[in-house]
Amino acid sequence: MEIKVLKDILSANDQIAERNRALLDSKKVTVLNVMSSPGSGKTSLIMETIRALKKKVRIGVIEGDIASSIDAQKVGREKVPVVQINTGGECHLEAGQVGRALESLPLEKIDLLLIENVGNLVCPGEFKLGEDKKVLILSVPEGDDKVHKYPLLFSMADAIVISKIDLLPYANFNISAFQKAVKGMNRKARIFQVSCTTHQGIQEWAEWVRSSMRQ
Amino acid sequence: MEIKVLKDILSANDQIAERNRALLDSKKVTVLNVMSSPGSGKTSLIMETIRALKKKVRIGVIEGDIASSIDAQKVGREKVPVVQINTGGECHLEAGQVGRALESLPLEKIDLLLIENVGNLVCPGEFKLGEDKKVLILSVPEGDDKVHKYPLLFSMADAIVISKIDLLPYANFNISAFQKAVKGMNRKARIFQVSCTTHQGIQEWAEWVRSSMRQ
Repeated sequence: MEIKVLKDILSANDQIAERNRALLDSKKVTVLNVMSSPGSGKTSLIMETIRALKKKVRIGVIEGDIASSIDAQKVGREKVPVVQINTGGECHLEAGQVGRALESLPLEKIDLLLIENVGNLVCPGEFKLGEDKKVLILSVPEGDDKVHKYPLLFSMADAIVISKIDLLPYANFNISAFQKAVKGMNRKARIFQVSCTTHQGIQEWAEWVRSSMRQ
Repeated sequence: MEIKVLKDILSANDQIAERNRALLDSKKVTVLNVMSSPGSGKTSLIMETIRALKKKVRIGVIEGDIASSIDAQKVGREKVPVVQINTGGECHLEAGQVGRALESLPLEKIDLLLIENVGNLVCPGEFKLGEDKKVLILSVPEGDDKVHKYPLLFSMADAIVISKIDLLPYANFNISAFQKAVKGMNRKARIFQVSCTTHQGIQEWAEWVRSSMRQ
């Protein structure tokens, strides 16, 4: 019974995600759905991506949080259009929330839309938003054993960004063991290593983002 | 409609949590529900707690994960009874799962039961398990801005453990700003600062755990 209800909610969500997708197609907007645990560095990666690409690409941002507008305020300093969604308790973004946020964005003037999902390594994976690519961030201090504990998001991701790579000397994180675990579950995902503090790896990441954009 | 269904699930869960509570009361077992984001150090804190207290207190552990038994294997090395729950996709533990795990534990020989919830800073807050105390861990690399973004768990916690305090020199984490934010929302929570690498703060934490136990 519970499962049936969940399936109904997901199916309704997917229909709205397809509507979002059709709208974004018509406006030629590429969308990345950026997901991770709380504090892995979603906002920092979004800000680095804006700085790396904003001279070449017109960027917009949707910030998802349960409460507060801390991240939208941060991102707004980069002078790009940003909309904050507060889910009011919900642990993930849904397509309907994104659909309403799209109405507030100047889509004609946006080539790349970065959606920061609610900090959660589980639930966002079940809800399509209308994105082109799913980006998953895992920070070095979280540890290299997360692939098998949180398999859904790791198996779905188009890109996996290992963030806070500058903390490698102070944490137990075996990069090659992690890469091997990912490959065993998801052969398509590109894996990046970045630090938003030292800017290591940001250029390579930004090139992938640009190459993923619709022409 | 969706909300009604959720309420029904929660209410059923709470009834089972009360049954768990009655069983644990009859066996004089104190239960801590340990919650955090993935990778904040729940397993490490549980292992440090076992090492600090196991000569004085008989401890058992329930490990919650979506998949894998990585953590139960780690904890099992401490020679305490441990049961792994795999939620198979679900983002939190529920009272029914804990109830079934209790059947596999020698409750007559356990004074303190540590339950490691699924790594998630949102959803576990809504599901009582039958615990005496809710413990929330936030690791230094996650950042000090999480209180307002994830208010439910911060407002409910009996103890908040700032973990990986040894990484303070390499991360932006303002302890006093964090403490102030917590106090604004939750005046009862004790706040601890610990490192499971250097063992800083573990003794103070373990003393609180012991003082929280039913006599």
